[in-house]
Amino acid sequence: MTIAVKFADVLDAAGRIGPFIHRTPILTCQTLDRLSGARLFFKCENFQKVGVFKIRGATNAVSLLSKDEASRGVATHSSGNHAAALAVAARGRGIKAYVVMPRNAPRVKKEAVAGYGAEIIFCEPTLESRESTLAEVMERTGASLVHPYNDRRVIAGQGTAAMELCEETPGLDVVIAPVGGGGLLSGTAIAVSGMSPGTTILAAEPERADDACRSLKAGRIIPVEHPDTIADGLRTSLGTLTFPIIQKHVSDILTVSEEAIVSSMRLIWERMKVVVEPSAAVPLAAILGRPGRFSGKRVGVILSGGNVDLDALPWVR
Amino acid sequence: MTIAVKFADVLDAAGRIGPFIHRTPILTCQTLDRLSGARLFFKCENFQKVGVFKIRGATNAVSLLSKDEASRGVATHSSGNHAAALAVAARGRGIKAYVVMPRNAPRVKKEAVAGYGAEIIFCEPTLESRESTLAEVMERTGASLVHPYNDRRVIAGQGTAAMELCEETPGLDVVIAPVGGGGLLSGTAIAVSGMSPGTTILAAEPERADDACRSLKAGRIIPVEHPDTIADGLRTSLGTLTFPIIQKHVSDILTVSEEAIVSSMRLIWERMKVVVEPSAAVPLAAILGRPGRFSGKRVGVILSGGNVDLDALPWVR
Repeated sequence: MTIAVKFADVLDAAGRIGPFIHRTPILTCQTLDRLSGARLFFKCENFQKVGVFKIRGATNAVSLLSKDEASRGVATHSSGNHAAALAVAARGRGIKAYVVMPRNAPRVKKEAVAGYGAEIIFCEPTLESRESTLAEVMERTGASLVHPYNDRRVIAGQGTAAMELCEETPGLDVVIAPVGGGGLLSGTAIAVSGMSPGTTILAAEPERADDACRSLKAGRIIPVEHPDTIADGLRTSLGTLTFPIIQKHVSDILTVSEEAIVSSMRLIWERMKVVVEPSAAVPLAAILGRPGRFSGKRVGVILSGGNVDLDALPWVR
Repeated sequence: MTIAVKFADVLDAAGRIGPFIHRTPILTCQTLDRLSGARLFFKCENFQKVGVFKIRGATNAVSLLSKDEASRGVATHSSGNHAAALAVAARGRGIKAYVVMPRNAPRVKKEAVAGYGAEIIFCEPTLESRESTLAEVMERTGASLVHPYNDRRVIAGQGTAAMELCEETPGLDVVIAPVGGGGLLSGTAIAVSGMSPGTTILAAEPERADDACRSLKAGRIIPVEHPDTIADGLRTSLGTLTFPIIQKHVSDILTVSEEAIVSSMRLIWERMKVVVEPSAAVPLAAILGRPGRFSGKRVGVILSGGNVDLDALPWVR
């Protein structure tokens, strides 16, 4: 398998999307340094537009459309962060976004995506219905597909977060990102290996959605069957574009329990005073669950997003 | 009444405490700008050490002790943020901190203050017991009193947050801070009038603890009787040192309802992705409750702190 994205693509993406996104801050926390024995640098993509790194890839993809393509809009299937990000990126270019979403998606998500100006097309909550509905929409409108992660433009865009992290924090021993479909992780891998070749690239994922860990061991993509994890951003499985990049550049994939995700999420809220979603807490959970492994190291951590339902916090009974 | 603190005191405090505190970031938020019609610059003291601006005043006071005074330690009565801040400031200089606290204070607060290395002396939950116990402790140990707000060194230290805000954000039309005992507000007033004489200084306080508003109208300190507000940092009344400074420099004190505090707190969590305590949300509540008043203005907002009990959030039933 070939590597679909080059470091130059990340550099190009950075120049292209810069005017449309936030350059997010990098925060440190003495308490978390003490607990981990490491020096942790948190890249705060929870402060990003739409509350998540996804706006980077979506903006890059939308920017790269030809005028003709753009005039017909973009389409995707997602009920989460990617749909919201694509809606905002499309609105930024003044074009239409079509989002296929299961009829039973939470109302708050439907409203968010509609609020950003996308047109929602409902489907049944099955893979078949989702794919056929999306195909219908693209056929009818001529809209271009922007896949949540298995898309070169999206991967290159997501890599710009780690690029900024390496620029501002030289000499990192490790960079660690969460992995679901692998868009953020593969972009991060390309960016870090280009910016800082000596830095080890690690990933963290929930035990209950450990397809990346098993796929890397098996040498082939093994999709996750029942991804019953609180980290809703990490329930997807690796794609054909993201897997080879991860195989080449990522040293290890560390899995964590649901309890560790919730307690790390709470630690970040309590100690750093920042709101992160469960997926964003997975890397810290991986670090804190391995005492000694990160001792004395300078570790860059991607805090991927901060979109949570404040009425349903996992530690409130 | 004379003004006890000069701008030079704030400048001196900034130089003195710089090595011991965080220079906190200033964040902006497009959604909150849209909702307010203003351009809001949030000085994030929730990211400060101990999670609150109070470490500034406490550190300044501890730094100014003579060697002889320092050897006998510091004392205060408080069950909240000031006690924790004073404990940390004292530990930083290697001296003792004695904290008088009502026996029925929440366990989490007792543990926090003890965890920071202070010696807790329990009293009965009455004003008399608190004051007599504090007098006893000071008599026995020779420790110096560091009052939570009615102290020149504390006021000057608290002013350094607004000083940093004005340094990094020139041309502010307004700076707004919450007011309880007035340490933060009076320090802010001294700093802003020194740094940026054309800037209007406003305060925000809960309707249910509106002593500052009533005192300013009456021209004398009218203590609050039953400060039954969720903004636990703002339940205290103005002091003899803070009142004259506020009289001289603060243009208006805006009061807000409990509902407005909770909804503004939630907005900050949801939209800015930062954890703030109820007291810190009071200025935003004042701004959003007065449509038009801040239109087109550049407004600096002090987000005073982020210490909340994540098990008892006000919007969770």
